[in-house]
Amino acid sequence: MHIEIDVKMNYRLGADRAALLTLEVAENTEGQRILSDNLEIADATVTRIAGEAGVGQRVWAALATEEMRLSYTAQIEVTRGAVALESFDAAPIHALPPEALTFLRPSRLVQSDMFGPFVARRFAGLEGGAKVAAISDWVRRSMAYGAFGSTQATTALDTFAARQGVCRDFVHVVCALVRAANIPARYVAAYGPDVDPPDFHAVAQVWLGGAWQLVDATGLCAPETLAVIAVGRDAGDTAFMETTDAAQFLSQSVQVSRRPAPARP
Amino acid sequence: MHIEIDVKMNYRLGADRAALLTLEVAENTEGQRILSDNLEIADATVTRIAGEAGVGQRVWAALATEEMRLSYTAQIEVTRGAVALESFDAAPIHALPPEALTFLRPSRLVQSDMFGPFVARRFAGLEGGAKVAAISDWVRRSMAYGAFGSTQATTALDTFAARQGVCRDFVHVVCALVRAANIPARYVAAYGPDVDPPDFHAVAQVWLGGAWQLVDATGLCAPETLAVIAVGRDAGDTAFMETTDAAQFLSQSVQVSRRPAPARP
Amino acid sequence: MHIEIDVKMNYRLGADRAALLTLEVAENTEGQRILSDNLEIADATVTRIAGEAGVGQRVWAALATEEMRLSYTAQIEVTRGAVALESFDAAPIHALPPEALTFLRPSRLVQSDMFGPFVARRFAGLEGGAKVAAISDWVRRSMAYGAFGSTQATTALDTFAARQGVCRDFVHVVCALVRAANIPARYVAAYGPDVDPPDFHAVAQVWLGGAWQLVDATGLCAPETLAVIAVGRDAGDTAFMETTDAAQFLSQSVQVSRRPAPARP
Amino acid sequence: MHIEIDVKMNYRLGADRAALLTLEVAENTEGQRILSDNLEIADATVTRIAGEAGVGQRVWAALATEEMRLSYTAQIEVTRGAVALESFDAAPIHALPPEALTFLRPSRLVQSDMFGPFVARRFAGLEGGAKVAAISDWVRRSMAYGAFGSTQATTALDTFAARQGVCRDFVHVVCALVRAANIPARYVAAYGPDVDPPDFHAVAQVWLGGAWQLVDATGLCAPETLAVIAVGRDAGDTAFMETTDAAQFLSQSVQVSRRPAPARP
Repeated sequence: MHIEIDVKMNYRLGADRAALLTLEVAENTEGQRILSDNLEIADATVTRIAGEAGVGQRVWAALATEEMRLSYTAQIEVTRGAVALESFDAAPIHALPPEALTFLRPSRLVQSDMFGPFVARRFAGLEGGAKVAAISDWVRRSMAYGAFGSTQATTALDTFAARQGVCRDFVHVVCALVRAANIPARYVAAYGPDVDPPDFHAVAQVWLGGAWQLVDATGLCAPETLAVIAVGRDAGDTAFMETTDAAQFLSQSVQVSRRPAPARP
Repeated sequence: MHIEIDVKMNYRLGADRAALLTLEVAENTEGQRILSDNLEIADATVTRIAGEAGVGQRVWAALATEEMRLSYTAQIEVTRGAVALESFDAAPIHALPPEALTFLRPSRLVQSDMFGPFVARRFAGLEGGAKVAAISDWVRRSMAYGAFGSTQATTALDTFAARQGVCRDFVHVVCALVRAANIPARYVAAYGPDVDPPDFHAVAQVWLGGAWQLVDATGLCAPETLAVIAVGRDAGDTAFMETTDAAQFLSQSVQVSRRPAPARP
Repeated sequence: MHIEIDVKMNYRLGADRAALLTLEVAENTEGQRILSDNLEIADATVTRIAGEAGVGQRVWAALATEEMRLSYTAQIEVTRGAVALESFDAAPIHALPPEALTFLRPSRLVQSDMFGPFVARRFAGLEGGAKVAAISDWVRRSMAYGAFGSTQATTALDTFAARQGVCRDFVHVVCALVRAANIPARYVAAYGPDVDPPDFHAVAQVWLGGAWQLVDATGLCAPETLAVIAVGRDAGDTAFMETTDAAQFLSQSVQVSRRPAPARP
Repeated sequence: MHIEIDVKMNYRLGADRAALLTLEVAENTEGQRILSDNLEIADATVTRIAGEAGVGQRVWAALATEEMRLSYTAQIEVTRGAVALESFDAAPIHALPPEALTFLRPSRLVQSDMFGPFVARRFAGLEGGAKVAAISDWVRRSMAYGAFGSTQATTALDTFAARQGVCRDFVHVVCALVRAANIPARYVAAYGPDVDPPDFHAVAQVWLGGAWQLVDATGLCAPETLAVIAVGRDAGDTAFMETTDAAQFLSQSVQVSRRPAPARP
């Protein structure tokens, strides 16, 4: 699938005039290919560094002025296919590669250490991909999707009690429950054309069958439609913009669409 | 029902040689009558003060020695009958008496403010006693009962994630969910002959039909078998023993039994 | 001292058209006398119930329309004098009356159970009023006063880490530290003419010398200038307005002033 | 400095008969050299994987029996010298390498996001190494060192309130405050001969002068005496032993000593 991304952002930065931006589609991740992309930030010096876990890249923008005017456009070919989670085995924990072991750990916003007994009983008898699929289904059925007031400080534990939230809250709960089942799970920032209204999206990746498999418990986006930006232990690792002093929102739009198939002669 | 209570406690107190004891059956609560009781603490001066919310009484024991040797025996007639929760209406919130309004609030161990959306959706369409009964059933079905390692610091939120605990943990979750439904709920320390192994017990009271109704989501004890000791916002208000310096456990036994019916001629 | 209070509030209530208002000056509290007062709520039926701990009164307003237009005016004579905290002894814990014992407990927003070792070491060697005065001084010196973004959910523990906040945050930290010193402390909603800009205010009350003594760690208001509204375990017990469905802010003003001394002939 | 390490551990593992062990001195970290080492685990198959952040190695032990009998001995030459923290500049945040940026983030046990305002005010005017040194001094002066009951679940926020703990608690508070100053800080498991009684130790590493500098706020160990085992976001990343089912402690000893200088002829 080909998807088109068009992001426009205007923020007034503080005196530091600097921002760390995690919004470019990852260049080096399986299942997607960048056909073309272009990041323009007016009056800025741009430096790229690797993303968390070596996935994708982040941009440090140092501005000559306080107002940041940013445009990012990209044409992406998503080459990964549909994923049947149930078909995958989980690796025995002692066979996990170190980069997966990291994502078994609880993190600031994902207190997976608190859900062990619940997961052991509620999903008893299931293993591997079947267990992850059951967890994802349970989250989708149990939670209401919407902007009910969760914030950057809202944790998986908070959301598990309130049972509502936006995509980031869904991912945090999925990661909490999957890690509690001793299966690595990480947070993924992504673009998807089926997010409505269009916005930055988040899904989970779980380590099954020797690779990271995408899981969207909101039910909004199929893996074969997602362009991955970055990964992390939780949303705190992948914020689309971070600044060291307070930034003022001016305007922002995120457009993601399927590129129409070329007309056939 | 007549029940017999026999408590023996031995603790080595710290230098303060003082303890606040909340273990006598409440004298002034509906549905129970003290036929006889006797609290003996060797070498101690005893002062009684009222319990929280005016229910029952607490004992300050000031000891001449560091070792506290306590015996409490009581014969109680429980006169309250079985309760059909579903038959009760909840009071409109503006018609609550102030002493009930207090128990709508979140407390240290009962973060009822975090469960509003979950309760509104999961128990939608139910009101009053039917809603409380559904909550109590849900807690009983969802939680495993046992000594899995919860502590005095374990909160309703912790337990809601782990879905396991002892009686105090069950009560905390019930209070969290019922308060989130705008129905007053409080923590009750009690004796019940059907607790196995015998120990101090805890249940909830909810304000329905203009009175406090007992609810035991563990399913262990029917209201008509319980002797109430004290009430509070959560377990922190009703600890059976509190000391200002560290106390050392020596031995303790709690026996609660149905008194055999008198032989008929 | 005579003080004048003038509150105007306009809110659009939800479908329940009901609000619990805790904003009238307490009628039955030592150190203050109501010379005159008047609460007017357009198109509303008003019911009064006692405040928490029997201090003051709360008003249930049931409205005929969704818009609540409220006016509260009062003339208060504050008769309490200046308080020298250092002059008071703390009661031995076993001599506390039950109504004070309640306010030794941690509460939802005041995790006093977590500060024991810090208080024991930092304020070692001090007792009673001298200890409370040292705690209040420490809070004033350690914290920055201002609207930095604390919310209704901000706890004493959060504030102790951030070291900044508004009056309610100061009170929560004072209550946490004073309770950790085994001295009862409660949250007090009040009016004070020296709050700038004028607004609802909050201070602490500590149980010293056999009575509740006012303490304002912000340094804004002396006890002899405060008109007490209500008390509670923390801010959650004394919100000036509570509604069961979402209310929309329209306008609000709080004016509190010293009444000019009468002209002398 | 040459140091000798001798660890003996006996645990009864659960049915999984597997343990992840993070106790070997890191092979690939600057400032230390392994002269010889030997890990023996009776009846076990051993697999090594890289440590977090690529520092050191972890061992998966799969046992033929339930009882794990482990011996680890090592001779280490510590080649790093004394560190004068004050002499180092902090990197501008936009010049941080990605592997350091990771350690600016809050983590499960280190809620650095909550301490920003406190750090900004309390350590105002200081930068880089001078700021880190001031934070480390503040932690040492403010906290009591000892086994007061902190657990694996104790967080930096808990410890900041209680102001007491063991080495891991000191490290968590240092990491929270240093990260809040926008300087990367990570948790380091280590051996040090000056820990008394001998045990596994923990210190912090901060990113200053383009490298990771060791900081021990307990004051127990100088950097030039430490043998680093592993690093992580907090203690949860570097536990010396992890098992998927409950393990039973049988015995354990950790001996770390300076190797006597060779006798001179």
